[in-house]
Amino acid sequence: MKFKDKTRQKIGIIGGGQLGKMMILEAKKMGFYVTILDPTKKCPAHSIADQHLIADFDDKAAIRKLAEKSDLITYEFEHIGVEVLKELESEEYKIYPTARSLEIIQNKYHQKNVLKQDKIAVPEFKKVSSPDDIKEAAQELGYPLMLKSCTGGYDGKGNALIDSQDKVEEAFRELGVGKIQLMVEKYIPFKKEISIIAARGLSGGMKVYPIGENNHRENILYETKVPAEISAELEEKAEDFAREVLKVFDGIGIFCVEMFVTEDGELLVNEIAPRPHNSGHYTIEGCVTSQFEQHIRAITGLPLGDTALLRPTVMRNIIGSGEEGKAEVIGLEPALAVKGVKVHIYQKTISRSGRKMGHLTVTADSLDQASERALEASQFIEIKGEKN
Amino acid sequence: MKFKDKTRQKIGIIGGGQLGKMMILEAKKMGFYVTILDPTKKCPAHSIADQHLIADFDDKAAIRKLAEKSDLITYEFEHIGVEVLKELESEEYKIYPTARSLEIIQNKYHQKNVLKQDKIAVPEFKKVSSPDDIKEAAQELGYPLMLKSCTGGYDGKGNALIDSQDKVEEAFRELGVGKIQLMVEKYIPFKKEISIIAARGLSGGMKVYPIGENNHRENILYETKVPAEISAELEEKAEDFAREVLKVFDGIGIFCVEMFVTEDGELLVNEIAPRPHNSGHYTIEGCVTSQFEQHIRAITGLPLGDTALLRPTVMRNIIGSGEEGKAEVIGLEPALAVKGVKVHIYQKTISRSGRKMGHLTVTADSLDQASERALEASQFIEIKGEKN
Repeated sequence: MKFKDKTRQKIGIIGGGQLGKMMILEAKKMGFYVTILDPTKKCPAHSIADQHLIADFDDKAAIRKLAEKSDLITYEFEHIGVEVLKELESEEYKIYPTARSLEIIQNKYHQKNVLKQDKIAVPEFKKVSSPDDIKEAAQELGYPLMLKSCTGGYDGKGNALIDSQDKVEEAFRELGVGKIQLMVEKYIPFKKEISIIAARGLSGGMKVYPIGENNHRENILYETKVPAEISAELEEKAEDFAREVLKVFDGIGIFCVEMFVTEDGELLVNEIAPRPHNSGHYTIEGCVTSQFEQHIRAITGLPLGDTALLRPTVMRNIIGSGEEGKAEVIGLEPALAVKGVKVHIYQKTISRSGRKMGHLTVTADSLDQASERALEASQFIEIKGEKN
Repeated sequence: MKFKDKTRQKIGIIGGGQLGKMMILEAKKMGFYVTILDPTKKCPAHSIADQHLIADFDDKAAIRKLAEKSDLITYEFEHIGVEVLKELESEEYKIYPTARSLEIIQNKYHQKNVLKQDKIAVPEFKKVSSPDDIKEAAQELGYPLMLKSCTGGYDGKGNALIDSQDKVEEAFRELGVGKIQLMVEKYIPFKKEISIIAARGLSGGMKVYPIGENNHRENILYETKVPAEISAELEEKAEDFAREVLKVFDGIGIFCVEMFVTEDGELLVNEIAPRPHNSGHYTIEGCVTSQFEQHIRAITGLPLGDTALLRPTVMRNIIGSGEEGKAEVIGLEPALAVKGVKVHIYQKTISRSGRKMGHLTVTADSLDQASERALEASQFIEIKGEKN
């Protein structure tokens, strides 16, 4: 190892959004130097990064520059061209998670194939490239079907639910008329969606966090409750899946594994994210070591930290409401007056409807108490576009 | 109130050391803009502050500039000339804690007088200005005596223990030969030193933290254990003292009240600090709301947060060792491998013997467990001047 004092490693982060910001807040506690690459001058992380390369995410020269300025690179979102990362890796630059992990995960079809081959249960799926393909798949999987673009989707974007054969053409047109790779998945009428945050360090150790139970609205996560109310058996199975995912993708850093608990109690992996995840924000206040500190420890070769839950915890997102405009925080005071509430404001300059603008977390002696308080606080606070 | 969205208030901090840094880490979670004033270009807070005025602490024009750039000013240490703060307050600039609080507290004689008048128990004390004064005071208070400079001391600097009449002249010479105000205090052979962090918000609310038990070595704090092992009766008395201190000094923000528990179970206030304090670092991991977040909430007019202790917590300082030189962190990995350990590195460029370079905190199910783990980790980690 080049660094006797590992805090001297310079960290480069592709992306300066809220995840990058929260990584930096942890990295700074231990004194790391951090450079971000983000096209937005006033992105959430800009004011606490040591350096900010203002460049597009597909600017290969800029990503190379970031690598040259850093001892290791990580990223806060998965939609990055992997070619440049592979090239840099071949020149011995350190990138965590590796370009190979990222390449498989960013294509949902490849991701699911790897999981399936590894005997990790996933919803049935098929690659499709025409309306006829979709109709043929439906004969096997039945309606409703989820049509998904294999790359680039998030928060439900890039997905279309097809409930009958009449809707096939429309959904196909909506998702890009065959210009991008598509797949269909059997629709899972799940009982619960859970997710598990897991970490693997450069030194090989592995840590799994308590399981969170997620609630979505219009395809955007709005609430995570921890611990999830599931059987011990399912819990164990989910943990096994998470460990297996880290192994099969050779994961370094934080990974999030989202899963469905089906009506008949089966566990199916829905999606993998090779990074700290919105459903793991609860770890900042809820666990001994947050997912962001854990990520920094993992990728800098430091020992992983304790993932124990301190108290039942509920996280709720603060989603932009109203018109697009300069972000204004309303109702922070009554929200903070609710016992145990912590508020995170991402400092996005512009608020728009559906945009993740912040989140709040409540820890309490019981999950019911935390839920009630989180709901109460979330009814007070709002971030919206300011009228001129 | 001028700000409907209180996160838009710009905060100015006099001082960019570790306390300033930890204030900013909390302020940034809620999206505040922060400017620091510190003469050291690479001071601990420099890389996460939005702006850094590089100026001496006695540079009145620079402090005025900080006030002009900020909606409110706070400070991380008490040795600031109050004249400029008073002047700025008279021009309606906001300074918290107020210049009046600071002025009384920064003179230990005035501080003790106010406490005594308010019926808060303090060790007996007298102002002195010559060796003869000290000898005369000794007739009443007895030896050993603590000779203290009334202003400017910290970490035991500015104090001298006089154990017999022979040492009076020497101690008097050591502390400035009458150039600065001096006082003597009855020496208290205390059983425990405890401290209590308390906060008062702009809106008037008050919150008191769990009591910490402090251990010193060569006059520098090296360990705080929470909860302190004291009787419920003493606990209540200490809390009453803390609340009374906030009231009598009209405190806004975090105050720390250090107290002695004497051999015969009496409680005496030793010193007040009008700011987040080293003995309150445990609150970052140990409590729902850290002292730094609480300070930011208090001075920006937000509601105060829950001060509940999550688990027994032990904090140990990481004090510079060896020769002066470029700071190097040794043994971070084995320290972080101890369960529940969190390490804070202040990013001071230069390490020297006795300098506070970082701290570590352990939370655990029992105080004994936390103590053992903190001790173990602190035996691994070291920050020292690098040899060239």
